Amino acid sequence: SNSVRVAVLPGDGIGTEVTEAALAVLEPLARRHGIGIATEMLPAGAFHYKETGEAFPESSFRAAEKADAILLGAMGWPGIRYADGTEIAPQLDLRFRLNLYAGVRPVRAIPGVPVALAHPRAREIDLVLIRESTEGLFHSRGKGMVTEDLAEETLRITRATTEKLSRFAFRLAERRAVQRGRKGRVTLVDKANVFRAFAFMRTVFDGVAREFPAVESGHHYVDAMALDLVRRPWEFDVLPTENMFGDILSDLGAGLVGGMGFSPSADIGDEHAVFQPAHGTAPDIAGQGIANPSAMLLSAAMMLDWLAARGAGQGFADAAAELEGAVDKAFGEGLRTADIGGKDGTAAVAKAVAARIGR
Amino acid sequence: SNSVRVAVLPGDGIGTEVTEAALAVLEPLARRHGIGIATEMLPAGAFHYKETGEAFPESSFRAAEKADAILLGAMGWPGIRYADGTEIAPQLDLRFRLNLYAGVRPVRAIPGVPVALAHPRAREIDLVLIRESTEGLFHSRGKGMVTEDLAEETLRITRATTEKLSRFAFRLAERRAVQRGRKGRVTLVDKANVFRAFAFMRTVFDGVAREFPAVESGHHYVDAMALDLVRRPWEFDVLPTENMFGDILSDLGAGLVGGMGFSPSADIGDEHAVFQPAHGTAPDIAGQGIANPSAMLLSAAMMLDWLAARGAGQGFADAAAELEGAVDKAFGEGLRTADIGGKDGTAAVAKAVAARIGR
Ligand SMILES: CC(C)[C@H](C(=O)O)[C@@H](O)C(=O)O
Ligand SMILES: CC(C)[C@H](C(=O)O)[C@@H](O)C(=O)O
Repeated sequence: SNSVRVAVLPGDGIGTEVTEAALAVLEPLARRHGIGIATEMLPAGAFHYKETGEAFPESSFRAAEKADAILLGAMGWPGIRYADGTEIAPQLDLRFRLNLYAGVRPVRAIPGVPVALAHPRAREIDLVLIRESTEGLFHSRGKGMVTEDLAEETLRITRATTEKLSRFAFRLAERRAVQRGRKGRVTLVDKANVFRAFAFMRTVFDGVAREFPAVESGHHYVDAMALDLVRRPWEFDVLPTENMFGDILSDLGAGLVGGMGFSPSADIGDEHAVFQPAHGTAPDIAGQGIANPSAMLLSAAMMLDWLAARGAGQGFADAAAELEGAVDKAFGEGLRTADIGGKDGTAAVAKAVAARIGR
Repeated sequence: SNSVRVAVLPGDGIGTEVTEAALAVLEPLARRHGIGIATEMLPAGAFHYKETGEAFPESSFRAAEKADAILLGAMGWPGIRYADGTEIAPQLDLRFRLNLYAGVRPVRAIPGVPVALAHPRAREIDLVLIRESTEGLFHSRGKGMVTEDLAEETLRITRATTEKLSRFAFRLAERRAVQRGRKGRVTLVDKANVFRAFAFMRTVFDGVAREFPAVESGHHYVDAMALDLVRRPWEFDVLPTENMFGDILSDLGAGLVGGMGFSPSADIGDEHAVFQPAHGTAPDIAGQGIANPSAMLLSAAMMLDWLAARGAGQGFADAAAELEGAVDKAFGEGLRTADIGGKDGTAAVAKAVAARIGR
């Protein structure tokens, strides 16, 4: 069909502000491309927990589960925690409950946005980390063992999830080769030189790699990858990895290309997907209208692209490309948010991007 | 006493080359400062394993254990592996068998050596990662569970080791405040928002922090730390962390300040310590005489400093400071190794550094 239903969970802090900006841009975008995007706002997050004792009401979860896609702002707040001291993070619940194994985190230099590295090729950075998001060390979330003297967590890698993650990575590399002219290269990031679980992961990955002879495949140890993300990130394309490694490396990557304010993400499973900026709720700047909504806008573009790939129609693919292009143009033409030393606030970005739609 | 015995394990590949360079510099340095450094060369490593079936002969281990300090080149080689496919890494055995819990990995911008970040303050980078080196995820090394369908590893944090690690970090911060005018700030890097084991680690760390009221103490999530190492690394001082996190972040750090060729390390316990460059055996350049021995020279300086702190005498402290200063001067005055685009080989660096001793 030509029309989709999107569950929107604005969450806490700047989550609500960047969500508002995204909705303001999606509206003219949908109109222009003749696509229907019906949104349903759902409560969840730290403040909801504080008010009601529930961080993620079952009704919100059910509605999100039934929607075609889920758009999420940001959740969590300092000082509002679960009884065991861990963070209020319904976004983690979604990953586990909807089996969103592929945490897609693009790291791309955006025109006009300063890059961290001095090397001239830093402007060519265009890679995608794929953080496995349902197992690895996070398998242990909430299940850690603690005594008076020690504490333990269990890292788990399964064959089934590694196969799905690997296939996802190879398909994405194929797609990026066509859509973006990237070289089609998948590099598994592991620590197979020390841990059997990662040697296992590598073996499973290599098996899947044989299904994709046209895509170059390789491996990199996670420590060497951290080094190379600083020294030659422009040489990488698609990087699948374990959950904890992906959490670390994707933030590193975000730091290279303007920070969290420019870093979109998608948590994708076989049936469902959540799209959200990589940043948190930013209590230090919440409520001031100065949060950079670019990560959210780019996440929304990923959502439209994913919906298109799921059969929602070419209009969604066109809208996705146009939205990403409009963000690029706005910054390429001088837009400057506070996080990169400028004065343009949340609403100004939404306006500047919307103005570049259909232009 | 005025004289020490150092066990030297050159290892494989460029390990032997940088070791030779270090010994060539230690000789005039010792003479000038009137200190005695007796060295004993010990076999271990991948090629030794290939020849004899033993990666780390018990005789080498015993001799190393009896020495006052251990200087190690680098070990491991592609294609030479243990039966389970993991890397030949006697350096890991040393960490575990000698209980070298504090993996000290300085990240410091060296005069004349290009830094990766464009920000002008990148030349002020001077921090130390302290990678806990006997437990964490590496507790599981060689003990991982693998079935047909899944694999598991166990991350372990103990109170005893966390207390020791934390004390080590605070003492180092005190020392750096005096010796180097650093601000005296310790930041634990963890993932306490998601894992009970890290919440436990944080609680234990906070307990130790109270013993050091003069040192500023704080925490940072590991993902945020990866971001901040790219965005404002000059603001950090001493960063203790879990083993796997430290492995990743220290390589990231090395990438910021010229790469592995400039990154020294020390693995320190209550009784023993191993000093070695952070780099590996570099099969691609081994045997060509072009390896950068700076990391090894700076590791040797750390060794002398540690020996001084253990009571070997002021001559050792002076020698340590002079060696580090000589490396700084050599590069500050134009020395350029192949890894930073120059032509100066291993022997040329040794010569240039030796020439700046006593000058
Ligand atoms: C908020 C936190 C629990 C979360 C995570 O660690 O997954 C965040 O860092 C992320 O990357 O989505
Ligand atoms: C060679 C490898 C096993 C080792 C480690 O992971 O500890 C290395 O990366 C290091 O940092 O010393």
